[in-house]
Amino acid sequence: MMDLKQEMKERCAYIEQALEQAVPEQKDFPPVIFEAMRYSLLAGGKRLRPMMVLAACEAVGGKKEDALPFACALEMIHTYSLIHDDLPAMDNDDYRRGRLTNHKVFGEDMAILAGDGLLHHAMETMADACVKNPTPQTTGAMKAIAHGAGVEGMLVGQVVDVFMEGKPLDIETLDFIHLHKTAAMIRGALQAGAICGGADEKTVAAFALAGEKIGIAFQILDDILDVTSTLEELGKPIHSDEKNQKTTYVTLFGIEKSREIAARLSAEAVSIWEEQGEGCAFLLELTKYLTTRTF
Amino acid sequence: MMDLKQEMKERCAYIEQALEQAVPEQKDFPPVIFEAMRYSLLAGGKRLRPMMVLAACEAVGGKKEDALPFACALEMIHTYSLIHDDLPAMDNDDYRRGRLTNHKVFGEDMAILAGDGLLHHAMETMADACVKNPTPQTTGAMKAIAHGAGVEGMLVGQVVDVFMEGKPLDIETLDFIHLHKTAAMIRGALQAGAICGGADEKTVAAFALAGEKIGIAFQILDDILDVTSTLEELGKPIHSDEKNQKTTYVTLFGIEKSREIAARLSAEAVSIWEEQGEGCAFLLELTKYLTTRTF
Repeated sequence: MMDLKQEMKERCAYIEQALEQAVPEQKDFPPVIFEAMRYSLLAGGKRLRPMMVLAACEAVGGKKEDALPFACALEMIHTYSLIHDDLPAMDNDDYRRGRLTNHKVFGEDMAILAGDGLLHHAMETMADACVKNPTPQTTGAMKAIAHGAGVEGMLVGQVVDVFMEGKPLDIETLDFIHLHKTAAMIRGALQAGAICGGADEKTVAAFALAGEKIGIAFQILDDILDVTSTLEELGKPIHSDEKNQKTTYVTLFGIEKSREIAARLSAEAVSIWEEQGEGCAFLLELTKYLTTRTF
Repeated sequence: MMDLKQEMKERCAYIEQALEQAVPEQKDFPPVIFEAMRYSLLAGGKRLRPMMVLAACEAVGGKKEDALPFACALEMIHTYSLIHDDLPAMDNDDYRRGRLTNHKVFGEDMAILAGDGLLHHAMETMADACVKNPTPQTTGAMKAIAHGAGVEGMLVGQVVDVFMEGKPLDIETLDFIHLHKTAAMIRGALQAGAICGGADEKTVAAFALAGEKIGIAFQILDDILDVTSTLEELGKPIHSDEKNQKTTYVTLFGIEKSREIAARLSAEAVSIWEEQGEGCAFLLELTKYLTTRTF
């Protein structure tokens, strides 16, 4: 039996070290932008998305070292999106992962630039990996991440979220937001890892589908935890959806029904991993954990 | 004798059409983000940076079609940087290229997202080109653009500009800002084009050096025009540097001395093009024009 917590801890430490090196402290002028980028990038967190990139690569027989630049880039993109989401002109949040948000520490101008900087650096990190090894694997991994994050992925989910703020949502719109804002990056992570590891198209498609299901289940659970968790457990403000009068799975279906839907999606993802075989053991356990976590 | 104006007009039209197709109108929900991206991307302008990508590619014997995705991506990145620069938390400008800035039309939240969207789409457009043709040429072009725009390029120039706002600058700091905020992208454009066209390392380095000189001369001229031009000629507010108490070449050296410095840099770039031979005829004429323009 796999000790999932221990596995996650070790994999997290490996990613943490890589991120530390990917955005090094800058002694030269001006250190402030690197400080601001590092403040949010190295603020802890479970590193689930980069962990998925590496695990997907290994699951199809690839080497995790080859996927590492893409894993780091994905986490930079995730972090940038949080910094910009938190801005006064967006969600106007003061806390994130239990500490002050980037603009509360560095000012709004530097927070915008720190976010931009992380997105730039993600692009450059991936471009570097592709130059060192210009193959269908590296360029394909880059494309999967760029697409998952871009104007047909995470970004458009954020746009609809902002655009519909304060308005009641129907289930189609809510699903659109979840699928794009959250699931597209998780799909991109698993796709990128599988492509990087040399998987065939059918396998990549299976990983992508699992990613969508995990992503939506993960987001539904996030909405549930916003209602049922505490500030200490969650590391970010609770009841923020209620405060912002947000439509969520919980407001549409209630907690119990929402749990059922998340559990169904989780089971569907698990069965994809089972079909894929032994190589996906860690992804299977991770999926179960992510979609049933209580904080 | 080349009719430069006519040449530029034709090349501009070619790029304009490609940009139009690269960020198409979006009929589906939500059109707003594409509207906001297109509002700024398709606001006219001389398309100098993408024009340089294509011209550099052709100058070394490459086909401009191969460089087109990189040219479009570079212009998307340039446009995103203008949108974010204009934000209330940054320069707080109301006009750009003679029309209202993005956030004045679409709101601050959508302007942040439209900028992010253009940067995402630049990354995806380049990644696409790399996937279709995973070679040292495509990945190298992407790297050159990512580096020119990134945390060691344009972005850090913007950071120092913001960081030093309202403070008097010495010449070293001013040169740092010009070299990074403006010249790095022009260097990246010429590098990317040359790499894409299959140039050897020595040629790429020469193109990069010319790009730096053109970029700095271009920026010095921009500072001069801010003082000597009119709103109608420039299409953006004049005397904005004075209003913002900015240190520029003009405040440090006066108009005449600044013109001399720009002319010297221009001549150095021109002599690089002359050494490179007949293929660089258009780049040579463009360089002369850019560094001696009166509006």
